[in-house]
Amino acid sequence: MAETNLMSLTRRIVAGDMRALASAMTLIESGDPKARTVIKAIYPHTGKAHVIGVTGAAGTGKSSLIDRLTAEYRQHEKRVGILAVDPSSLFSSGALLGDRVRMRDHFLDAGVFIRSFATRGSAGGLSAAVRDAVHLLDGAGKDIIIVETIGVGQDELEIAALAHTVVVVLMPEIGDEVQGMKAGIAEVADILAVNKTDLPGAEQAIQQLEALFGDGNIPIVPTSAVKNEGIHLLVNNIDEHRVKSVGNGSYWRKRVKLCRQELLALLGDRVFVQLAKKVGDEALDRQAERIAERRIDPYSVVEELAKKAGL
Amino acid sequence: MAETNLMSLTRRIVAGDMRALASAMTLIESGDPKARTVIKAIYPHTGKAHVIGVTGAAGTGKSSLIDRLTAEYRQHEKRVGILAVDPSSLFSSGALLGDRVRMRDHFLDAGVFIRSFATRGSAGGLSAAVRDAVHLLDGAGKDIIIVETIGVGQDELEIAALAHTVVVVLMPEIGDEVQGMKAGIAEVADILAVNKTDLPGAEQAIQQLEALFGDGNIPIVPTSAVKNEGIHLLVNNIDEHRVKSVGNGSYWRKRVKLCRQELLALLGDRVFVQLAKKVGDEALDRQAERIAERRIDPYSVVEELAKKAGL
Repeated sequence: MAETNLMSLTRRIVAGDMRALASAMTLIESGDPKARTVIKAIYPHTGKAHVIGVTGAAGTGKSSLIDRLTAEYRQHEKRVGILAVDPSSLFSSGALLGDRVRMRDHFLDAGVFIRSFATRGSAGGLSAAVRDAVHLLDGAGKDIIIVETIGVGQDELEIAALAHTVVVVLMPEIGDEVQGMKAGIAEVADILAVNKTDLPGAEQAIQQLEALFGDGNIPIVPTSAVKNEGIHLLVNNIDEHRVKSVGNGSYWRKRVKLCRQELLALLGDRVFVQLAKKVGDEALDRQAERIAERRIDPYSVVEELAKKAGL
Repeated sequence: MAETNLMSLTRRIVAGDMRALASAMTLIESGDPKARTVIKAIYPHTGKAHVIGVTGAAGTGKSSLIDRLTAEYRQHEKRVGILAVDPSSLFSSGALLGDRVRMRDHFLDAGVFIRSFATRGSAGGLSAAVRDAVHLLDGAGKDIIIVETIGVGQDELEIAALAHTVVVVLMPEIGDEVQGMKAGIAEVADILAVNKTDLPGAEQAIQQLEALFGDGNIPIVPTSAVKNEGIHLLVNNIDEHRVKSVGNGSYWRKRVKLCRQELLALLGDRVFVQLAKKVGDEALDRQAERIAERRIDPYSVVEELAKKAGL
C-alpha cells in the first residue's frame, strides 16, 4: 500500500468505514510497519472514546457479560468497539472461539466492531498492538471501547492499564480464593462485577466481597448475564466512575500517564533496534559464544558494549 | 549487604549451602540490584545443569508429574532445583499453592530446592528473574533444573525458551482442542507427556496425538503421576533428547542463542534506563502532556527525541 493509499484508508476510517477499519486492524495484528503511518494520521482524531477493561478468570462469563453490556450501550446509540485479547491463546483457543460465537448477535450490527487479538511475538509485544488497536477504534469514532482479557498475568495487567475504567469479573464459587487475591484485585479494579448471581452461593459471595472491599472505593455490582440482570446497574457504575474521575482530575492524570508509558515503550523499541544495529550481528554472535563458553558473564559484556556504543 | 558479604554468600552457594541459595533467590525475586553481583560472581560456575521446562494448561497434573520426576532423579542421586513460575498468579494463586503442597515430600530433602516464582513488575520482567534464578541453581550445583510454567502465553513461551528440553503436558480429555494447538505445541515441545492416563479416553487421545505429531520428531510419552506410571520412560526420553541434541550440535546452538537473547535483553534494559535519564523526567512529562492533548502523536515525539539524543 502506497503512502497516498494509506492516507485514503485513514480518511475512510475516520469517516466510519468498517471495511477500512478492518483492514487497518489487520495491519496492526500482523505487525506491519504501515500501521504506524495510519496511527500517526489518525491520532488527532483520538482521545474521545471511553476505554473499559474487562478482566477475570476463565469461566466467569466475561464474554456473555460484554455481550449484554454492548446491547445496553447500543440501546443508547453508543458505537462500540470490542477487543478480545488472549495472551495465552495456545492452550485456550477453543474456549475463546466458543465465547466469540455468543457475540454473533452483534456481528450484523454496523455500530459494533469486534476483533479477537492473540498476536504473539509482534514487535513491542501484545500490549503495543492492543494500544494501537484502541487508537484505531477511537479514531474510527467508537464511543465505547471494551478490552477483554483473560486472567491477570503480566501481559493482562499491562493491557488492563490501558483502560480508563477496569471491571474485574468474579463469580460466586470463587469463595475463599478471593482472600488471597485481594491486593491484586485492588491494584487493578475500579469496579467488581459478581457475575452468575443465578448460581447458588451468590449472596454469600457478595457479603464476603463487601467485607473485603467494604471501604466503598470499589463498587460491587451483582450481575447475571444469563438472566440479563444487573447490566443497567453496571453501566451506571461505569459511567459514574468516568464522571467522578473526570471531575477529580484522575482521568486526565491517567491519560497523561498512559501517554508517558506509550512514549517510553516506543522510545525503548526504537533505541533497541538502533543499538542492535550499532553493535552488529557479528559482534553479538561472538559475545554470545564467549558467554556460552563461560569465559565471561553477560553483565560484564553489557558494560563493555554499552561503553563502546557511548551509552 | 556489602560487597565482601556478597562474595562470601556466593562462595557458600557454590559450596552447596541451601540457606545461602535461598537468600540469593530472595534478592532476585525482590528485584534487588545486589542479585546482579551474585550472578556475575557465580557465572563461571554455571553451564553444567540440564534445564527442563515443563508446561501445559492448568489441571493437567504438571506439579504431581514434576513431583514424580524429582523422586526418579533423586533415586539416581541427581541434585534437583525446581522453579514453579506462574505469570498469572493473581487469579490462580489458590491452585498453585494447592499444588505446591503435593511437593512437601521433597521439602526435607537437602538435594531438592523448590521455589515458587510470581514476580510481577520486576525490572526486565519475569523471564529475566527466572533466567537469573536458573543461573543461581546451576551455580549451586544442581544437576537438573525443572522450570514449571502454566499455560503458554507470551511470558510462558519466553520462559520455556530458557530450557534445554521442553516437556508439554497434556491430558486425555483435551481431545479435539489439540488440533487447533498443533502449531503452538510443535513450536515449543521437545517431548509430549500425556498425563492422567488413568482417566478414560487415554488410548484414544494418544492415538490422536500420534496422528497429529506422527513424524516421530516429538516423542509422545503416556504417564500417570497418580499411579506413578511412565515416569521412568519420561526420564529416559528427556535424557535421550539431551544426548541427541548434544551430539548433533543443537544443544550448543541453543545455548549460544539463549546467551545472545539474554545479552540483548540486558543491553536493552541498560540502554532504556540510560535513555530515560538522558531525556529526563521533565521532558518526558511535558511530551506526554502534549500527546494527551492530541497536539502531537507519540511516533513523531519518538523521532524528535531520538534525533535529539543522537540515536
